[in-house]
Amino acid sequence: MTDITRIEAAAFRLQGHALRTPLLGSDFLNQIAGRRLWLKAECLQLTGSFKFRGGWSAVSALEPEVRARGVIAYSSGNHAQGVALAAQRHGVPCVIIMPSDAPRLKIDNTRAYGAEVVLFDRDRDDRDAIGNAIASERGLTLIKPYDEPEVIAGQGTCGLEIAEQAAEHGIREADVLVCCGGGGLTAGVALALESRAPGLRVRPCEPEGFDDTARSLASGQIERNARLSGTLCDAIATPSPGAITFPINKRLCGPGLVVSEDEALQAVALAWLRLKIVLEPGGAVALAAALFRRESLAGDDVICIGSGGNLDTAIFRMAMDRFASA
Amino acid sequence: MTDITRIEAAAFRLQGHALRTPLLGSDFLNQIAGRRLWLKAECLQLTGSFKFRGGWSAVSALEPEVRARGVIAYSSGNHAQGVALAAQRHGVPCVIIMPSDAPRLKIDNTRAYGAEVVLFDRDRDDRDAIGNAIASERGLTLIKPYDEPEVIAGQGTCGLEIAEQAAEHGIREADVLVCCGGGGLTAGVALALESRAPGLRVRPCEPEGFDDTARSLASGQIERNARLSGTLCDAIATPSPGAITFPINKRLCGPGLVVSEDEALQAVALAWLRLKIVLEPGGAVALAAALFRRESLAGDDVICIGSGGNLDTAIFRMAMDRFASA
Repeated sequence: MTDITRIEAAAFRLQGHALRTPLLGSDFLNQIAGRRLWLKAECLQLTGSFKFRGGWSAVSALEPEVRARGVIAYSSGNHAQGVALAAQRHGVPCVIIMPSDAPRLKIDNTRAYGAEVVLFDRDRDDRDAIGNAIASERGLTLIKPYDEPEVIAGQGTCGLEIAEQAAEHGIREADVLVCCGGGGLTAGVALALESRAPGLRVRPCEPEGFDDTARSLASGQIERNARLSGTLCDAIATPSPGAITFPINKRLCGPGLVVSEDEALQAVALAWLRLKIVLEPGGAVALAAALFRRESLAGDDVICIGSGGNLDTAIFRMAMDRFASA
Repeated sequence: MTDITRIEAAAFRLQGHALRTPLLGSDFLNQIAGRRLWLKAECLQLTGSFKFRGGWSAVSALEPEVRARGVIAYSSGNHAQGVALAAQRHGVPCVIIMPSDAPRLKIDNTRAYGAEVVLFDRDRDDRDAIGNAIASERGLTLIKPYDEPEVIAGQGTCGLEIAEQAAEHGIREADVLVCCGGGGLTAGVALALESRAPGLRVRPCEPEGFDDTARSLASGQIERNARLSGTLCDAIATPSPGAITFPINKRLCGPGLVVSEDEALQAVALAWLRLKIVLEPGGAVALAAALFRRESLAGDDVICIGSGGNLDTAIFRMAMDRFASA
């Protein structure tokens, strides 16, 4: 299982490979949020999302002879890029199984990071059958996107940095808002903060219609989403909390927060305008919650993770047209 | 005069107030540049540009009783915001004299940082007469945008960080490309690197038609631009190198680099796509030079400063429409 020791080991392996992303702020956003708002800019991480942390952690933790045969992953995009670049920099083969309706940019980038991309049709194909056949034939190791202890440990390194950066700013108590799909980033950050900054409490953030973690935390058991696609927040549209991640999040997290797609798009526009960073809608739901759910938060500070910035220009234009016309 | 001691003193005063901006990279940009490209993301600095460093340095260096009477600055936008926020956080009055055709966003932001904005018409009004009258009436201290030792020292703190970050990546020799208007950032960074990383050589970067520093470095004396406005790179459209900055830059800098407006816009689009940051055209000329003047550079690494990100949405849309259509 993942614990602080495993997270620290992942941090050691990531040194010199991943970016220590900055904690950004803006007086303009403070005014909207009604408190000091801090954004951990993981969109600036290599591959444009925090997923490189988990990908590198998992690939670097493999035994060399196992790693040499290669790795495989299922992903609609950000985990794909994180694993692909980690494999490329380790000099090992990589196959990524992606849905054919994944954002074009994410498919192109995954290929550019040297991975062999195999597309499947979400409605017709059996994704697992395709992946299992390739993996067993070539002896590839599967890197799961969140229900994998070394991946959770890698995402937890983001939490170690948040603990350090909060201390630098004198923040002892705050809600830490995390964009939540399967719950790997949420669990890793929650474990890191439990050990290093116990006054910081993780709150998972999700878009309407994909609030499986919020509902699961409320009911105490794993709940599923009715839909699996059809959201601008594709990066965090997962069927349900993970079997490994949910028990961690149930133990450590506060109640989930849910925002609308419009609020996520508005957060994309405000991140562009006020923080000078690019967030995708799924990577902006925590910022949206910090800005637009102020009555559900407590304290003088709120920290939110901007988890990724890989979006097609059409969606970015939509956010600007609707919320940044000037 | 500005020297390394003054820069270190400015760095001390800036601690806990300015952001240590990250040095970003992307394999995609490395391919275009033909070498490892590193971007110092000053657009993430408070107020969206490096100018906050110089503004804070100058305001914080004033004697308390002088500072209490307030400060005044002339600026088309980024220096305005830097000085305004520095004054606001010191709790002192601030007047900014801005041209009426400055980007709307910069005028609005300057006001939002608590400054009193006085607009003048570039063609009809005598800017200095307006500013001098207000300053003498109220006892305000003028904070010049570049020909001011404490401002140069503040901008030099960006160079101290580049020296540290280059060392972390094992970079001992490289060209450091700096977006250059009046030459304050160029001079400050050059002085810092002379002392802390002598293998790093500053190269000023400018847009076509506003290449006064490149021509001045070539001729050995101060040359002027024919035009003073009418460029998308408004942030760095200055009449000529400064009387204080030019001797420093003449002594320390390599030859200047000149890019077209189209190349600057393409760099804006690539920074969005590959680095997930927002640059304004004037803040992207150094990145453009790193990408599109590779034959004029030497070595395995190039470091460029992305100096600012305050642009109106219309210009950003233009960059995306032309160079990021997907």
